[in-house]
Amino acid sequence: MLDAPDISPLTLNRLSLYLRALRRLRRSGVETVSSGELESHLQLSAALIRKDLAQFGELGTRGVGYNVAALVDRLIRILGLDRERTLVIVGAGNLGTALAGYLGFNSDSFRVAALFDNDVDKIGRRLGDLEILAPAALSEVVEEHNVDIGVLTVPLEAAQENYELLISTGVRAILNFAPVALKQAPDLSTPVVHVKNVDLRIHLEELSYFLGSPGR
Amino acid sequence: MLDAPDISPLTLNRLSLYLRALRRLRRSGVETVSSGELESHLQLSAALIRKDLAQFGELGTRGVGYNVAALVDRLIRILGLDRERTLVIVGAGNLGTALAGYLGFNSDSFRVAALFDNDVDKIGRRLGDLEILAPAALSEVVEEHNVDIGVLTVPLEAAQENYELLISTGVRAILNFAPVALKQAPDLSTPVVHVKNVDLRIHLEELSYFLGSPGR
Repeated sequence: MLDAPDISPLTLNRLSLYLRALRRLRRSGVETVSSGELESHLQLSAALIRKDLAQFGELGTRGVGYNVAALVDRLIRILGLDRERTLVIVGAGNLGTALAGYLGFNSDSFRVAALFDNDVDKIGRRLGDLEILAPAALSEVVEEHNVDIGVLTVPLEAAQENYELLISTGVRAILNFAPVALKQAPDLSTPVVHVKNVDLRIHLEELSYFLGSPGR
Repeated sequence: MLDAPDISPLTLNRLSLYLRALRRLRRSGVETVSSGELESHLQLSAALIRKDLAQFGELGTRGVGYNVAALVDRLIRILGLDRERTLVIVGAGNLGTALAGYLGFNSDSFRVAALFDNDVDKIGRRLGDLEILAPAALSEVVEEHNVDIGVLTVPLEAAQENYELLISTGVRAILNFAPVALKQAPDLSTPVVHVKNVDLRIHLEELSYFLGSPGR
C-alpha cells in the first residue's frame, strides 16, 4: 500500500464528486468521457478536473477522454473504497439515528455495525438491523467488526469524553458532528487518528451571510 | 444594507467558528481575548484569525486583543444572524426529520416553519411543534412565514424538481442534501438563489482516503 499523498480535503471531495458522476455515466452505458463533458455534468471547470486527475498519473487520452470504467476503478482505489469500511455511531439521538439510515445503508462501501447511547431507555432498542448498545460494549464491537470510523453524534458537552473513548478502542477515524474542537490527548495520538468535523449549522450561517443583514 | 463582500465559503465557515468560541468565552465572563488565545481554543493559527477579522475593519487593539462582546455582535451582523431566518424542510424522511430537530430548535437564528413530503402516510403527522404538509401548501407557507431557506432532503431523483418548486415560491437560499448537482433553470435565476450542497457521504470518503487502501 502506498502512503496517502498529501491531497487537500477540497480536492478529495471533488474526487468523490467525479466518482459519483462517472458511476452514473457507466450505468447509462457511457464508455468514454472528456473533461469538457464532465464539466457540464459537475459544474466544475474542465481545467480543474484535468488538474485534479493528473495528480494520479495519466488517466485520460488527449482527444479521446477518460475511459469511464477504468477511471471509476482508479478513483475507488484512490479513495480507499475498494474495501468495506465499518462504522459505529456514538449518540443515538435524532441525528445519530438519521445518519444510521443515511450513511449505512444503500452503499457498497460503508456499513454501520451498531449505535451506542448511555440512555437506558434507548439501550437494547433496534433500528432495522441495528441495535443500540451501551458504551460498555463499544470496545468489543470495534474489535469484532474491525471498525474503522466512529461517528460522534453526542451533545457538545459529551463529545470530548466519547472521542477519547472511541480512539481508546483503536478507531482510526472520527466523523464529529458535535460543534466543538476536539482536543487530541497526547497519549492517545498514536497511531494517527483522522478527525473530520461536520457542523451542519455552519452551512446555514453561510447561506445567511449571502441573504444579507439589515444591520450590516 | 451593504452588499455582501466577496468572501470565500471557507472564510465564512471560520467566522462561524470564531462566533461559537467567542460566545462561549462571553458566557464564561471573558471580556477581551487575543488572537493567540483564540488560536488555542480553535486550533487555527493566530495569523489566520487576525487576517480573517481584519477584512471587516480594525476589530482588535494591538497588545490588548479583541473585545469579546463587541466582536460577537459584529460577527452576528456580518453573518446576517441579527434576524431570525425561517426554513422549510422538503423531504420528511430520516434525514429531514433529524434536521428539523437539529437545525430548528435550540437556536436564536433559525426556525423551521414546516416539513413537506408527498407521502400521504406522512402528511398531517406532527414532529413536536412541526407539521408535515403536502407540497401544495409550500407556496402559502413560504409567503406566510417569510421563509428564507429551503432545505432539500428528498431522494436524488426528486431533487431537481423540488429545487425548482422551492425557488418558484421565492425562497432565496437552498441547503441541498441530495447528492446531485442542481441545475439552475435560466428563467428561475433572478433574483440570485444561493445553493449550498452538503453531501454527508463525502466526509466518509475523505476519511476512507486517509485510512488507506490495500489496492492503492
